[in-house]
Amino acid sequence: MKHIPQGFKASSLHNPKLSLFFSSVPCSAAGVFTRNSVQAAPVLLSKKHIRSGFARAVLINAECANAATGKRGLRDAELSAGYCADALHIKRNDVLLASTGLIGSYLDIKRIHRGIKVLSKNIARYGRENYCFNAAARAIMTTDTFPKIMSRKFRAGKTYITVWGCAKGAGMIHPDMATMLGVILTDARIKSVDARRALLDTVDKSFNTITVDGDTSTNDTVYLLANGCAGGDYIVPGRPGWAEFKKNLTAIAEGLAFMIAADGEGARHVVTITVEKAKNNQSALTVARTVATSPLVKTAICGMDPNWGRILAAVGRSGVHIDPYKIDIYIGDLNVCRNGCAATFNKTKAKNILRKKKVDLRIVLNQGTAAQRYITCDLTKQYIQINAHYTT
Amino acid sequence: MKHIPQGFKASSLHNPKLSLFFSSVPCSAAGVFTRNSVQAAPVLLSKKHIRSGFARAVLINAECANAATGKRGLRDAELSAGYCADALHIKRNDVLLASTGLIGSYLDIKRIHRGIKVLSKNIARYGRENYCFNAAARAIMTTDTFPKIMSRKFRAGKTYITVWGCAKGAGMIHPDMATMLGVILTDARIKSVDARRALLDTVDKSFNTITVDGDTSTNDTVYLLANGCAGGDYIVPGRPGWAEFKKNLTAIAEGLAFMIAADGEGARHVVTITVEKAKNNQSALTVARTVATSPLVKTAICGMDPNWGRILAAVGRSGVHIDPYKIDIYIGDLNVCRNGCAATFNKTKAKNILRKKKVDLRIVLNQGTAAQRYITCDLTKQYIQINAHYTT
Repeated sequence: MKHIPQGFKASSLHNPKLSLFFSSVPCSAAGVFTRNSVQAAPVLLSKKHIRSGFARAVLINAECANAATGKRGLRDAELSAGYCADALHIKRNDVLLASTGLIGSYLDIKRIHRGIKVLSKNIARYGRENYCFNAAARAIMTTDTFPKIMSRKFRAGKTYITVWGCAKGAGMIHPDMATMLGVILTDARIKSVDARRALLDTVDKSFNTITVDGDTSTNDTVYLLANGCAGGDYIVPGRPGWAEFKKNLTAIAEGLAFMIAADGEGARHVVTITVEKAKNNQSALTVARTVATSPLVKTAICGMDPNWGRILAAVGRSGVHIDPYKIDIYIGDLNVCRNGCAATFNKTKAKNILRKKKVDLRIVLNQGTAAQRYITCDLTKQYIQINAHYTT
Repeated sequence: MKHIPQGFKASSLHNPKLSLFFSSVPCSAAGVFTRNSVQAAPVLLSKKHIRSGFARAVLINAECANAATGKRGLRDAELSAGYCADALHIKRNDVLLASTGLIGSYLDIKRIHRGIKVLSKNIARYGRENYCFNAAARAIMTTDTFPKIMSRKFRAGKTYITVWGCAKGAGMIHPDMATMLGVILTDARIKSVDARRALLDTVDKSFNTITVDGDTSTNDTVYLLANGCAGGDYIVPGRPGWAEFKKNLTAIAEGLAFMIAADGEGARHVVTITVEKAKNNQSALTVARTVATSPLVKTAICGMDPNWGRILAAVGRSGVHIDPYKIDIYIGDLNVCRNGCAATFNKTKAKNILRKKKVDLRIVLNQGTAAQRYITCDLTKQYIQINAHYTT
């Protein structure tokens, strides 16, 4: 049973694949979008809409990316937002969009219009129930094998706050951002500027440190909507409740990000790569990312093969200045490489560690005190199977 | 029938997997090595040996990388070079080494010693024959499916010159360099400094613009040995013969590089990616490399799927400042994307183009006049099969 924040409703459809999240009152809203130079129409439009700092609805289309569609795509995005606003009796500016699916094809706008009418009718009648939110999280899935939902209820200062989030991932997953869509809803009372700051911090620690295939999408989007329905005073940075709020928000974002990596296309393992004792955070992150994206490391994990030489080679090509003779590598608790050379270890034990779904790789550079982690998945034949025939 | 340059001999063994190239007279020698910070012992030693600008022998081990082996590895490399020098009656400094194979395991130095004795006995008796060179090129193969050999005979100034080269590739292939080993032998009379310059120029145009999986190895090495046995005057930059020499050297390096990409682990397609009308060479190269390494582009090629949206998305995430509404994309001659949007094209025709082994992708940025090309291969289930179980 997940906790649903007060004042929100959800509704979804499977034909066309649409999800709608709606707040009964205006929300402080923040968004983080793909840094790909090729940006989908819903990204371009939502960036404009969110400038006000407020929103009331998020409409997600999981069928058509509406990317590389030029002026017609932008007009279609505007029409979608307009239909949504009319049906919900809110301002067009208060509608945020997100899309995923095939790049380069156009929306069937009439079908979307009919879909929005159904969604808004459902919202008028019900939508507060847990199963409505679950269904909405399910409707945004593409090649995902399970819906990604997480929620928390906690006390921040004197007020009980609920945060609920969902995400979709699977392929084209890499910072910044990934082909991922995420919506985080809370009934906390927060100002727009603080929502924005909290979301940015949180995304850097979660969605921006996962990778599936290193491909950044044209459509990546994460929203945070805070409607204040929990009541109480504004939760403000530095004041009681803020730390608690940030902690829980981050936990949810990290949880969703981990689920995305674990559900990477074709993945059988989810791998947490921790780089320790680096000179600084940036170099730790670069090393972690290089290892996390190495096809040879990812295929070794797929084969449950403790081939630490590939990890060492990836560390070496990361571009970070390192002393190879100081590097220690651990697979789980097992020290497999010591001072850049082979350590004596039990191969059967290593294989048993790699047989588990969750794998921890630890790379100790012994150069300083900084540490960073990155989450990835293994590269399997199923990834190829899924991606070799996507448009056809 | 390949042309063999005068004064060179070759010899090889399959147990242990060793190849030896030998020149009856001292050669001007140049080498280009991996830029991975983790460098194999044979790389570290050969870098020292080549500082003199001269060499007479190249010994290649295709069984054990002798990387991540610390002091013992370095001593083993020194012993190998020493055994080789003693057997061939040359200076230890005149022996260059190259290795490929598993990272982190040690050489069986006694077995190597026995192997070197056999190789040098064979060299004393024969080794000038074409089949000896073919066998040597074959003995350095690991997961390669065919030996990579190319040779040319041409007139440079008044002298007939022969250039012969071989390479091995398959996996861990990416600039700078790739897990590739290459040896180029010529009987041209060239000074060390010019050999070095020629090799550097050539490598940038060939081995540094191919990728299989984006993983740079710890052992990458390309050597150029010029023994002057063709006679005549020194071929010097800016003088008659130099342009001819450079042209043929580059053709051989490009030919070998193309073969490496075509024989990428599990590859069924070799893909030439040309980026045109870019602002400058660097941005053209960055875009080409990003597309060439995108798993989603590479799996689409594997599926013979004209999914140009993935190409556009990769261009967008390359970090190069582009205007997406100016981009045209071609699959073969077929315009599939125009001004960043879908072009009307015949899907059957596109599929037919992608059915061929050699595929050309052309990305026109319409921002300037610079152009660069990159060669890659598709990402298939066989790549996973090969790499999931390499050490075991």
